[in-house]
Amino acid sequence: MNIGRKLKMGLIGGGPGAFIGAVHVKAAQMDGGIELVAGAFSRDAEKSKEAGRSYLIDPSRAYGSYQEMIEKESKLPEGERIDFVSVTTPNNSHFPISRDFMQAGFDVVCDKPMTFNVAEARDLKKVVEDSGRLFGLTHNYTGYPMVKLARDMVRKGELGEIRKIVARYPQGWLASDLEASGQKQASWRTDPSQSGGAGSMGDIGTHAENLAEYISGLRISHICADLSIFVDNRRLDDDGNCLLRFENGARGVLHASQISIGEENALAINVYGTKKSIEWHQEHPNYLHVKAADKPLEIWSRGNGYVAEISPAAARATRLPSGHPEAFLEAFANIYANFADALRARISGVTPDPLFMDFPNADDGLRGMLFIETVLASTKSDEKWTVMPK
Amino acid sequence: MNIGRKLKMGLIGGGPGAFIGAVHVKAAQMDGGIELVAGAFSRDAEKSKEAGRSYLIDPSRAYGSYQEMIEKESKLPEGERIDFVSVTTPNNSHFPISRDFMQAGFDVVCDKPMTFNVAEARDLKKVVEDSGRLFGLTHNYTGYPMVKLARDMVRKGELGEIRKIVARYPQGWLASDLEASGQKQASWRTDPSQSGGAGSMGDIGTHAENLAEYISGLRISHICADLSIFVDNRRLDDDGNCLLRFENGARGVLHASQISIGEENALAINVYGTKKSIEWHQEHPNYLHVKAADKPLEIWSRGNGYVAEISPAAARATRLPSGHPEAFLEAFANIYANFADALRARISGVTPDPLFMDFPNADDGLRGMLFIETVLASTKSDEKWTVMPK
Amino acid sequence: MNIGRKLKMGLIGGGPGAFIGAVHVKAAQMDGGIELVAGAFSRDAEKSKEAGRSYLIDPSRAYGSYQEMIEKESKLPEGERIDFVSVTTPNNSHFPISRDFMQAGFDVVCDKPMTFNVAEARDLKKVVEDSGRLFGLTHNYTGYPMVKLARDMVRKGELGEIRKIVARYPQGWLASDLEASGQKQASWRTDPSQSGGAGSMGDIGTHAENLAEYISGLRISHICADLSIFVDNRRLDDDGNCLLRFENGARGVLHASQISIGEENALAINVYGTKKSIEWHQEHPNYLHVKAADKPLEIWSRGNGYVAEISPAAARATRLPSGHPEAFLEAFANIYANFADALRARISGVTPDPLFMDFPNADDGLRGMLFIETVLASTKSDEKWTVMPK
Amino acid sequence: MNIGRKLKMGLIGGGPGAFIGAVHVKAAQMDGGIELVAGAFSRDAEKSKEAGRSYLIDPSRAYGSYQEMIEKESKLPEGERIDFVSVTTPNNSHFPISRDFMQAGFDVVCDKPMTFNVAEARDLKKVVEDSGRLFGLTHNYTGYPMVKLARDMVRKGELGEIRKIVARYPQGWLASDLEASGQKQASWRTDPSQSGGAGSMGDIGTHAENLAEYISGLRISHICADLSIFVDNRRLDDDGNCLLRFENGARGVLHASQISIGEENALAINVYGTKKSIEWHQEHPNYLHVKAADKPLEIWSRGNGYVAEISPAAARATRLPSGHPEAFLEAFANIYANFADALRARISGVTPDPLFMDFPNADDGLRGMLFIETVLASTKSDEKWTVMPK
Repeated sequence: MNIGRKLKMGLIGGGPGAFIGAVHVKAAQMDGGIELVAGAFSRDAEKSKEAGRSYLIDPSRAYGSYQEMIEKESKLPEGERIDFVSVTTPNNSHFPISRDFMQAGFDVVCDKPMTFNVAEARDLKKVVEDSGRLFGLTHNYTGYPMVKLARDMVRKGELGEIRKIVARYPQGWLASDLEASGQKQASWRTDPSQSGGAGSMGDIGTHAENLAEYISGLRISHICADLSIFVDNRRLDDDGNCLLRFENGARGVLHASQISIGEENALAINVYGTKKSIEWHQEHPNYLHVKAADKPLEIWSRGNGYVAEISPAAARATRLPSGHPEAFLEAFANIYANFADALRARISGVTPDPLFMDFPNADDGLRGMLFIETVLASTKSDEKWTVMPK
Repeated sequence: MNIGRKLKMGLIGGGPGAFIGAVHVKAAQMDGGIELVAGAFSRDAEKSKEAGRSYLIDPSRAYGSYQEMIEKESKLPEGERIDFVSVTTPNNSHFPISRDFMQAGFDVVCDKPMTFNVAEARDLKKVVEDSGRLFGLTHNYTGYPMVKLARDMVRKGELGEIRKIVARYPQGWLASDLEASGQKQASWRTDPSQSGGAGSMGDIGTHAENLAEYISGLRISHICADLSIFVDNRRLDDDGNCLLRFENGARGVLHASQISIGEENALAINVYGTKKSIEWHQEHPNYLHVKAADKPLEIWSRGNGYVAEISPAAARATRLPSGHPEAFLEAFANIYANFADALRARISGVTPDPLFMDFPNADDGLRGMLFIETVLASTKSDEKWTVMPK
Repeated sequence: MNIGRKLKMGLIGGGPGAFIGAVHVKAAQMDGGIELVAGAFSRDAEKSKEAGRSYLIDPSRAYGSYQEMIEKESKLPEGERIDFVSVTTPNNSHFPISRDFMQAGFDVVCDKPMTFNVAEARDLKKVVEDSGRLFGLTHNYTGYPMVKLARDMVRKGELGEIRKIVARYPQGWLASDLEASGQKQASWRTDPSQSGGAGSMGDIGTHAENLAEYISGLRISHICADLSIFVDNRRLDDDGNCLLRFENGARGVLHASQISIGEENALAINVYGTKKSIEWHQEHPNYLHVKAADKPLEIWSRGNGYVAEISPAAARATRLPSGHPEAFLEAFANIYANFADALRARISGVTPDPLFMDFPNADDGLRGMLFIETVLASTKSDEKWTVMPK
Repeated sequence: MNIGRKLKMGLIGGGPGAFIGAVHVKAAQMDGGIELVAGAFSRDAEKSKEAGRSYLIDPSRAYGSYQEMIEKESKLPEGERIDFVSVTTPNNSHFPISRDFMQAGFDVVCDKPMTFNVAEARDLKKVVEDSGRLFGLTHNYTGYPMVKLARDMVRKGELGEIRKIVARYPQGWLASDLEASGQKQASWRTDPSQSGGAGSMGDIGTHAENLAEYISGLRISHICADLSIFVDNRRLDDDGNCLLRFENGARGVLHASQISIGEENALAINVYGTKKSIEWHQEHPNYLHVKAADKPLEIWSRGNGYVAEISPAAARATRLPSGHPEAFLEAFANIYANFADALRARISGVTPDPLFMDFPNADDGLRGMLFIETVLASTKSDEKWTVMPK
């Protein structure tokens, strides 16, 4: 979609010491269709100005609070004011910021998990519906082309009926008491008042949950969870293991950990059907393993014609020919690319191509919050199974 | 150990259509210190004779029953009669055969799972103790040098305290109703009267359990299991997923499956400690992945000096230089090599080197049966945790 | 370096059907410090306008020729006119375009191979020296952090003295007569009047040569080459194999191919020293294999502290934490990032940090052209060795 | 084939400190159809006796020389005397020993390279023809099932016409002056009087040559070689790189090295045809990579029905189901298994199945010696190409 100008982006968060804010900006700007023009990068006005300078934006648009930003940006003419805002603060502020921007008429991209708890998630979903704004959630791993291929293989029945899903997300960076050092990422992610009720399960377990549901098209119905805290003085889970049941009777295993020492970011998934199975590893994202009975293992590689044939969504999410690897930022950018095309369609007054709408939204965000809440409830329960609400 | 002659082996099972019997023979004979001389290869006397001819043994020593074999072999002079017998029949006959041979004064190697149920396992353990015979159990995966290395790294504290273990054993060969075709392997393994109460969990889940306890030196204390039958008309589980707790507080995940379509024999394990973690894949058995915080991933390769330095047991279990791969049969042969050296020590009247005793025994067999029983109990229970007895 | 505004980029090439032009734009804009503002995207003025619209630039700055672009841009005030231009046309026009822009006072990034022949390369090198302009060459594979790490390991003596280098670059996309279909990439790359004297060796063999010299710090002294044309009616080599000797006496093998059917973009290199060796694969770029005698293979992974310790250049070229893969575009962007920081230093009137100057330049471009010329001479010669000039 | 008894094997070499002798014995005995009964294990009679005891053979058949062995064994009745002998001494004695045994009526298995030079190789080939004896050469890497599959894929035209072959065999164990330590393997392999004119190229380069010709069915016609000695005071090449041309016009690269530090036994090959290509790595021998244009990479795995369908030879060379890895010893055993079946056919007076004859023979041995001689001649020549004689 071409509206003759770049979309204008605002950023909340992303100040000094942050990680994910800059990722949002790089991802958004990668394809040349979005430019960052404003932000409330820190609650400290001076730090926000400093960040604004480093982002090379007009100093007058580096605001000291998101409220100020709403007020000032709203007064700018359309085409000059921001078209949408990206919310990259800790979890506890996702809801009010997203709500306020949407109610002020701005579209929103928000980092995950979507909110602090399920109640906020249900409220936010309603705000989205009531406001009619676009709401994108950066469950970025579903932006990978080979994940889209996997989903489309399932959709087209290539795998047959799904019987079993194994999703795992081991990391090791919190194997020791990193938060004691004051490291910013570790600090807020292990702080219940900023992160919510779950630690690792909220931070990365929800990615595994989202990936499993996205690829399989199935919904988790029951969870049996065992969350643990291994590091002394830590207040939130740093390891969790779950048995799953899905609506169609499929079984599952999901485990996530931030004390799996030596692991980097090893999100991976296997989906087993009656006819074929697939395996995907985030650290080697350009390849999808496809397995069948008495056939050679197939390694499908991004960027090929045979991928495009099964999955137009994967083809659309591809920038480079096969063998020229794409990775994390490109997948992240695919969330933005679809969100942006959907937004341009609305600006242009046309119905968006269904492919544009292939980005995580408030429904996915609610699923994530329900997952967290169910895992927490199950951990406290002596019953084997806890039902995951819809 | 050299007693100046080859040890003489008898075989129970291994007739036409069998799989594991021939594996035992190749493994036992690989190092030139054991020769097959007798067998009750089938309960059909003619088939037993036929198998005897194909094994190139003296026709008079291909017996029509194991009872006949005990009777006739017992009458032969020592050095001519079998030194030990290998039991490779379906699970339901492991106990009586092993018991009768031991009580007749023969040493025994037995395939796993050790018995039909826990009661038999406790009885067999007592028979071993009372008879003073050597009893080896072919949990062959612990025969791999890199598994021994992993165990020795844990023993020496290289990993620190163990926090988490993930063991998985996906296969796909029973993804469809293979037993309906009359395939011999599928038939008895899915038949409760021959296999026992568990299907996949007994057949391969016990390997994963044995591997986890062997490497970690820890014992499972609690299990939360979810066994399933996916293929219509099948009577035993073909998929199972478990959460584990270990005696020291470590957490675990163990899943095994024979409906994971496209998987071959993908047994694998991760063990995470406070200092390092390890990863091993049975299908790539010459390598052990060793991970630590902020250090490059290390791929330890069998046959090197640096392996021998940590693990004399791994060095002893190695026949070839690094880069000259060893595999399944060699690992299987390592069970026999240690068993045979222990047996030769006894024949020679000397105390066996502790390294010789590094083969699975009746204790391991009992653990396996307790694991099966606990998994079955947990599957039927609505409680989250079922205690695994000692 | 922060000069308070984005650098302004112009693009030559990159019109409809092109591949590499859009790659330059995405790479340049990824970090938010460069924006595309002008271009001569096609020699067809209408197509250039069309491309300009798709790049969302001011229509008045989509020019019909690069000459027009020089003329018009030169008249704009500094800060508004382009700061530099990227040349992404076929090889035969690299020289005149780059020369004219530099002589008009613009800095230049140029795609590889640098020129059409050695004579032009020597001339261009002189233009760079005489004009004092910055000249960057997109031998993009040296932009990968793990390649920089490899180079720094060699520099610091970690590998000892280099004995052997094996560089290979197999592709399969020209295994059949693709140019006959009119496919734009295949057409100009197999056309001697646009590509120059070499086909595959010029297009991708030079990447392998550049990688070998970049990592090792050694210069090729002698080449023995065997170029072939396998596809009927093709006019330039589609496969080539070389023996190499390096100045220090090291031996080498370099082979490149575009008829290696089924290969995607499998550039890889091994460098063997007296103490250690390294291995790197472009399709798995986040990992560097480090090998030594009687030590475990080490897989060094981008984004870790232990990498930064050896290689500040690798750390600087890294955007994401370990386990969050980076890939081709990010490596390409690293060429631009360093070029841009060097340019900002000049604009700011300060001496650039030596790390900024870590991008391929006219010296590398001349080496590439000498390599091509020597390979072509060797192919025609019956002598084993042909000297590569300096 | 079943002749009702085990074949009786004699061994030359394999005494204390040797490596390959014991490998031959394990490989020969693995399948239970061959037993070692006699040997001249060392030229030192006492050491030979000592080795005989460790092999558990009748002490009277541990001879002090191969001549004594021929004399004494010849006097034993058939069925008691050895059926064949395996020659595992250093290269310089392969010819006289093999010749004398064949002329005395014994069949022979010989280690590679077959002889000390081409003249001996031609003579030995004549001895084989004149004596009518079976002669097997342990180019063991062609015993791997997936190598047989690769050959059969080529034979059946699956790859189309072969265009390019890349064979490489890097090892690192001679990166330093190991022979100075007196290590037995290093000592004789670097000694021209025992090894012949070539070092690494004879020891391992011939394996790469044999593999290339075996899989492709093509013969090398021209070689351009560059052999080097990197370690001070070494007298034979420890590194070599070759360009190849094949009879059909295919191009090739072959390099072998024993100074490639950190490499273990990394023999690998790529064969590129007009329709498909294959890749195989000795260190991961159960898998064959099969590549085609615009199709997913296929990883063919040993032991599956789809392998057997293309290659009965691979199926016949397989002992275990897929996922249960086989490795070096099993491949080595496959040479023996075929040789033994051919021998049993002769003993039984029947024509051997053509599959039995799938083991390397004197023709392959002569090719290997011609390869060595051509490489040595090319290394001394200033001409680019040296013809490899037939």
